[in-house]
Amino acid sequence: MNELTEELLDSESVFEGRIIHLRVDTVRTPDGKVTTREVVEHRGAVAIVPLLDEHTVVLIRQFRQPAGRVLIEIPAGMLEPGESPDECARRELIEETGYAAGRMEKLFESYLAPGYSSELLHVYAARDLVPVGNSLDEDEFLEVFTLPLAEAPTAIRNGDVCDAKTLCGLLLVLNEAGRKERNDT
Amino acid sequence: MNELTEELLDSESVFEGRIIHLRVDTVRTPDGKVTTREVVEHRGAVAIVPLLDEHTVVLIRQFRQPAGRVLIEIPAGMLEPGESPDECARRELIEETGYAAGRMEKLFESYLAPGYSSELLHVYAARDLVPVGNSLDEDEFLEVFTLPLAEAPTAIRNGDVCDAKTLCGLLLVLNEAGRKERNDT
Repeated sequence: MNELTEELLDSESVFEGRIIHLRVDTVRTPDGKVTTREVVEHRGAVAIVPLLDEHTVVLIRQFRQPAGRVLIEIPAGMLEPGESPDECARRELIEETGYAAGRMEKLFESYLAPGYSSELLHVYAARDLVPVGNSLDEDEFLEVFTLPLAEAPTAIRNGDVCDAKTLCGLLLVLNEAGRKERNDT
Repeated sequence: MNELTEELLDSESVFEGRIIHLRVDTVRTPDGKVTTREVVEHRGAVAIVPLLDEHTVVLIRQFRQPAGRVLIEIPAGMLEPGESPDECARRELIEETGYAAGRMEKLFESYLAPGYSSELLHVYAARDLVPVGNSLDEDEFLEVFTLPLAEAPTAIRNGDVCDAKTLCGLLLVLNEAGRKERNDT
């Protein structure tokens, strides 16, 4: 697939923020032409599908300034410098929901917006949840609630759940539950 | 849910690019404190799950500079100014895969990275595909191929498919196919 790869010629940093950095890369495309790519640098994140039992998921409501509205999401957060995705998943689950996970299983990794963002998201399923009390970051405000997993597809179709990582996490857990059920019968 | 909402106090544009704009918003959080939010402004996009038949999906391989690698994705593209999501989905499907859709059904809308990006993605299923020849943008290079839908969960779990919009689209189509099957029996 080498004929698809672009050659990096130059890279210019244009913004360094708290959450994201922005750079503009100059690249040579496979036909030899030169163009630019705008790249949001993000150090990666985790998201967790917390399962109270095999039929019930813990979700959060959170105001998102870029969307201008409150969204329903699975708990998630950015990697701290030096932190592994596994460590981050355990920390964020406690901070945002107040549950510690007895079992944490990695489900998949996914780029969220690879057209312009380097963010790679690591997604986990958390089981055997034990309430330990939450501890939000200073500028975080959210509500925790539960949803029957079986209601997730309808909530996605009617727009109540409209966050990509949440769709991915809920649909993958549902897909695996369905496969397990078919194998068991 | 008013206790979650942030009040916008100020907004400063820091970068205007070809694909994204970047602004830094100053907001008042629900507890009255003042903080900043970095917001990537994006005019929205579409993605399409093109079904050759009910068991086969058309996918593309494309180099993504922010990821530094070739990714497997469903066809997708940005809204042109004044273009509706429906129009954009029909146009991008033809441009990227060379197929025109006899039927196009909206599946869902989703924010991709609402922590820092305003991008809202509109996702469609395309059926009754007719080959008409593709027409890529000048700086686009990609390969078109097909995958049996039943292989998608394994491709997600083993990391071959690691793009969020692609996971969402494939898993939702699989979920609906499963539901239809259970209703038919």
